[in-house]
Amino acid sequence: MGHPVVAVAIVFVSAAIAMAASSQYSHHPLDPLTATEITAIRAAVLASPLVPARPLFFHYVGLDEPDKPDVLSYAYGAADAAATSSQMTLPRRAFVIARAGGQSHEFTVDIAADNASVLSHAVHRGPGFPMFTDEDQIAAMALPYTYPPFVESVRRRGLDVGEVGCGVLSRGWFGAEQPAYGGARVAKMKCVVVDYNATANIYARPVEGVVMVVDLDRMAIIGYRDRAVFTVPKAEGTDYRADKVGPPFTGPAAPPGVVVQPEGRGFHVHGHLVKWANWEFHVGFDMRAGTVISLASVNDTDAGGLKRRVLYRGFVSEIFVPYMDPEEEWYFHTFTDAGEYGLGALASQLQRGVDCPANAVYMDGYYAGSDGKPVKAEDVICLFERYAGDVAWRHTNGIGLGGLFSEVRPDVTLVVRMVVTVGNYDYTLDWEFKTVGSIKIVVSLSGILEMKAINYTHVDQIREDTHGTLITENTIGVYHDHFVTYHLDLDIDGTRNSFIKNNIVPKRNTGVRATGGAPAPRRSYWTVLYEVAETEAEGQVNINSAPADLLFVNPSKKTKIGNEVGYRLIPTGATATSLLADDDYPERRASYTKKQVWVTPYNKSEKWASGLYAEQSTGDDNLAAWSKRNRSIKDEDIVLWYTVGLHHVPYQEDFPVMPTISGALEVRPSNFFERNPLIRTKPPENSPNCSCSIGGSA
Amino acid sequence: MGHPVVAVAIVFVSAAIAMAASSQYSHHPLDPLTATEITAIRAAVLASPLVPARPLFFHYVGLDEPDKPDVLSYAYGAADAAATSSQMTLPRRAFVIARAGGQSHEFTVDIAADNASVLSHAVHRGPGFPMFTDEDQIAAMALPYTYPPFVESVRRRGLDVGEVGCGVLSRGWFGAEQPAYGGARVAKMKCVVVDYNATANIYARPVEGVVMVVDLDRMAIIGYRDRAVFTVPKAEGTDYRADKVGPPFTGPAAPPGVVVQPEGRGFHVHGHLVKWANWEFHVGFDMRAGTVISLASVNDTDAGGLKRRVLYRGFVSEIFVPYMDPEEEWYFHTFTDAGEYGLGALASQLQRGVDCPANAVYMDGYYAGSDGKPVKAEDVICLFERYAGDVAWRHTNGIGLGGLFSEVRPDVTLVVRMVVTVGNYDYTLDWEFKTVGSIKIVVSLSGILEMKAINYTHVDQIREDTHGTLITENTIGVYHDHFVTYHLDLDIDGTRNSFIKNNIVPKRNTGVRATGGAPAPRRSYWTVLYEVAETEAEGQVNINSAPADLLFVNPSKKTKIGNEVGYRLIPTGATATSLLADDDYPERRASYTKKQVWVTPYNKSEKWASGLYAEQSTGDDNLAAWSKRNRSIKDEDIVLWYTVGLHHVPYQEDFPVMPTISGALEVRPSNFFERNPLIRTKPPENSPNCSCSIGGSA
Repeated sequence: MGHPVVAVAIVFVSAAIAMAASSQYSHHPLDPLTATEITAIRAAVLASPLVPARPLFFHYVGLDEPDKPDVLSYAYGAADAAATSSQMTLPRRAFVIARAGGQSHEFTVDIAADNASVLSHAVHRGPGFPMFTDEDQIAAMALPYTYPPFVESVRRRGLDVGEVGCGVLSRGWFGAEQPAYGGARVAKMKCVVVDYNATANIYARPVEGVVMVVDLDRMAIIGYRDRAVFTVPKAEGTDYRADKVGPPFTGPAAPPGVVVQPEGRGFHVHGHLVKWANWEFHVGFDMRAGTVISLASVNDTDAGGLKRRVLYRGFVSEIFVPYMDPEEEWYFHTFTDAGEYGLGALASQLQRGVDCPANAVYMDGYYAGSDGKPVKAEDVICLFERYAGDVAWRHTNGIGLGGLFSEVRPDVTLVVRMVVTVGNYDYTLDWEFKTVGSIKIVVSLSGILEMKAINYTHVDQIREDTHGTLITENTIGVYHDHFVTYHLDLDIDGTRNSFIKNNIVPKRNTGVRATGGAPAPRRSYWTVLYEVAETEAEGQVNINSAPADLLFVNPSKKTKIGNEVGYRLIPTGATATSLLADDDYPERRASYTKKQVWVTPYNKSEKWASGLYAEQSTGDDNLAAWSKRNRSIKDEDIVLWYTVGLHHVPYQEDFPVMPTISGALEVRPSNFFERNPLIRTKPPENSPNCSCSIGGSA
Repeated sequence: MGHPVVAVAIVFVSAAIAMAASSQYSHHPLDPLTATEITAIRAAVLASPLVPARPLFFHYVGLDEPDKPDVLSYAYGAADAAATSSQMTLPRRAFVIARAGGQSHEFTVDIAADNASVLSHAVHRGPGFPMFTDEDQIAAMALPYTYPPFVESVRRRGLDVGEVGCGVLSRGWFGAEQPAYGGARVAKMKCVVVDYNATANIYARPVEGVVMVVDLDRMAIIGYRDRAVFTVPKAEGTDYRADKVGPPFTGPAAPPGVVVQPEGRGFHVHGHLVKWANWEFHVGFDMRAGTVISLASVNDTDAGGLKRRVLYRGFVSEIFVPYMDPEEEWYFHTFTDAGEYGLGALASQLQRGVDCPANAVYMDGYYAGSDGKPVKAEDVICLFERYAGDVAWRHTNGIGLGGLFSEVRPDVTLVVRMVVTVGNYDYTLDWEFKTVGSIKIVVSLSGILEMKAINYTHVDQIREDTHGTLITENTIGVYHDHFVTYHLDLDIDGTRNSFIKNNIVPKRNTGVRATGGAPAPRRSYWTVLYEVAETEAEGQVNINSAPADLLFVNPSKKTKIGNEVGYRLIPTGATATSLLADDDYPERRASYTKKQVWVTPYNKSEKWASGLYAEQSTGDDNLAAWSKRNRSIKDEDIVLWYTVGLHHVPYQEDFPVMPTISGALEVRPSNFFERNPLIRTKPPENSPNCSCSIGGSA
């Protein structure tokens, strides 16, 4: 989210090194592109006569995964059992967006080993632009230093041009109320004081009042405004680097602790396929979405280890982060982090033993630089077994009848983690798999606030709405939201599912059994009204409005006693929805953030909640626009879109770096299994420190 | 919650052993009663001429803590610095409720070493009764075996009387619509098939249709009804004991893992005082409330280690569990677990290495049996440092300007845990202290559902509202709620606090700066409207209605830049509120469950949300009744009451034992510290498996 003054966080490596890192692992059709493949894709695109214009910059290169029925046949075998499943060879294709000649070009590229060829080409004619490239940002950063009005603005503030740095910010979309610049691909730039001797916290020292407009294709500043001068906040107290804040390290500290697994890890990674306890899934990487979880299935150990499908594909589709300051330098801060900056491209190298515990294993990703060459994103995904001290289930039987005994099963989960640093903000994005059959999706936010310089040094001086909190002298932490929208193509025990609202509704006791009542003194109760969502309009839910259990069920599969097999949604905090006016431009682009839950029929092209071209998108190609068709979602292949949302009112503790705050969604089996799947799980071994029983049964 | 057929889960020990376990530890005024003290209290009450009636049964014996100002002086020194703080000797008193002669007697007992004397006595004249005793329940359990109508009912069902067992259930309160029985202390009894050879899951096999009324003082069955015969569900598939379900253990399994702390634990326990990282607090035990956290303060390490107050006293005040079946045998299932059964009295012995990880330490509790003798509740509280793989804060600085580096601080927390097993349900009640200054209060539910026998074996047979889910053949998991209400006497940096609603409200951009707008294309935004709750009516909040940050602030303490110091509430899932009709009897008893948040002025006598005499309470002495006075809560010593609420629609996975589900509340410093208190915390040491930096700064 946010303010990517220095967004480029990944080490560039040479293609040679990157390719060396690719192994002899036999491809799964959903495997992300390898360095070798990216190199071949680049060559094919550059060799194609379809787009002769140069320079050509690569904005997105990603897997164009095979059609879902083919992937399902590959993974699970065809329904008619004729196909050979994992022996199948599926087409291997990439989807590429490149800019050349002032246009956005789309290529489909066929990949065969280290060779590749362009299969199709199209020019994007509608609104919006592809993600920024590293090149865009690095080249733009150099422009202000030689732009006289900026040099003058810096001088006017008593600063040296050498001690400032500027970053590229998406300008959003505001219709005819913003200059069109002839349809050019423009962005805004804002600047900060950069003096790493004084502080690493560049976001804490904005050069407030100055905004530039940059044409990223022409790579030139085409607009400039210095509205007013504000005090630059001081550097003192803003640094967070260990070697600058200590020693002595006077902050609160807990002792070190390491998880030891005497029998080793419990999961196996083969290429991108992961097997752990009762789970199997595929971990992919995409430069826009970051981690992609595919083909997650759970073994039903009570049904002889039957592999049962849960999630075809899940990933973060978008992160919408609107700021709440209407001022000239701030109104356009309405970021779509995935579509404008790319979550995979901004994934941070995970710090071993710190970002992930010592028992983690790591995966790399590869994406294309703007020159099309592969960039290695090293250690951007970790997997680890989490021993948090929780209990999966327990019961203590009382002594009154029978005997005093306890049965307890500790909970161990498998976490797949990525940290995405979009400029100032750090998102820790976890997929937590539980043996009980749940997948918990956790968003944790840390990093640095977007700060606005202001001349006030004390709250008592403030009379107007500053649109944020005075978090230190001369510094406002600006109000904003985070809306992290997940694409979750749940396939509960098969492809065709329905979305059920089990509405929890109060009833008065009629006293008559035929109507659900009973002749008893009780006057009220609640019951569950089952409602199938027929169309997309019925698939939109604000979960804060009325109580309901929301489920994805497979209407053609029932438990032995006749319940529809399903998974239900359990929101866990962070259920905010957008408060922007429906007619406001940013809201039109991300109108889907008014409800946490949307359900759509599966459509391979509907991946990005803010549209394929989210940068300066207008809302014509987003989740809400697609859903206006109001397609049938009953007993269809359907997709859940869920938004984890936070209204962020900053507090002083969020400065200079924010303590982590989290929100989550769990999808949990609900009449999916015949019973608790962990009943036949072995209890922990007895040991001097670990007994699981305090008495025999009667 | 619930169905305490066999509620008595604690080993009785002789007073001699219990007393031997009490140590030479010098008392803190909030320490729970020791075995020696309980013995002395018993002697004093029995020796008192004020209540000659016998038998006399002890229903509650607990610490009558000294007045708050005295405790504060003891703990923190007097405001005028004249007092000697921890050198002070405060009166040591107990509060006792005993039944004798058909009346509830209240005693205040002065305790001096191993001697004690009754200071005052009163007879309770209002509605309601004290908690059931173990004796109540055990004695009542024996009655049905010799009660001919019951023997006949059992025979009629083809069962042998030797294979059934019955438990005591509170009957709730339903005004004149229930028989008064002359004001006798009556409860209901329901029965199950008990055959541990077939299954340990006694709750799975109800003898449905039979309800008895028992007079607990006369210890006689005074009412009986056998309405209808239902099939007893089969035992097969209901057991959960490891030695019955395996080997082979075919359930999903993760490998064992143990947290190793190479430098040892980071916390120190001296008696009941705990010091850890920047926290200090006192851990008490009460037979009704369970764990009591007192005098929690956080050291402000950026302010020279200043000890700053956060929580005077926090505990579970009540757990209200209404079931949603209006039928004759079910309508009265409206349990108040703390007030009727006692959370401390039902705390389970924690299984070492399973309920709590291997690095935990344990505390015992003592309470009074119905004979007044001390009962040792062994290992009922554990404390451990939690290494869950989370991150306290992090940031990766991009390479664009400056240098690529990451700073990450792993998160370690301290958990204080108790598991309370109220019959069928197991509540894991955690207090999690975080170095960032937060206290997270987590409720996790497991255990066994309350089940209703029904003649159906398949969902297709069901036409009417069964008030629950068919979870296995002949078995309904009945719909119900859990409302866990916390008493949280927050004292943010001092005693006098205010409750602030920072309402997050949408605004249209006026285009005029004087009104908060700006001349920019943005049409809307949100801002924060600060609202001080003046009186109790304004302190009641349904957190699902409108977005707001809710804070406890100290209006007389400000940060250097002028923000009021405070803590805010962060609900994390489980925000359900009661759906019962306002005029329904159970709702009148627990009407406070219509809002998650209540704020009251501190009053030493207002501890129990459903009233001191919660058993058959009528709502005349509960949180909502107290709040009707609408006292001032602005800049006063105020108390937060927060309810974690869940609507529980059972699913088949909840059978035969429920997988854990959780809800939580975090109270988090918000402008309490001048900045993130963890900035000066030492990063983890570098090691082969643990580096905290991937590059130097520029």
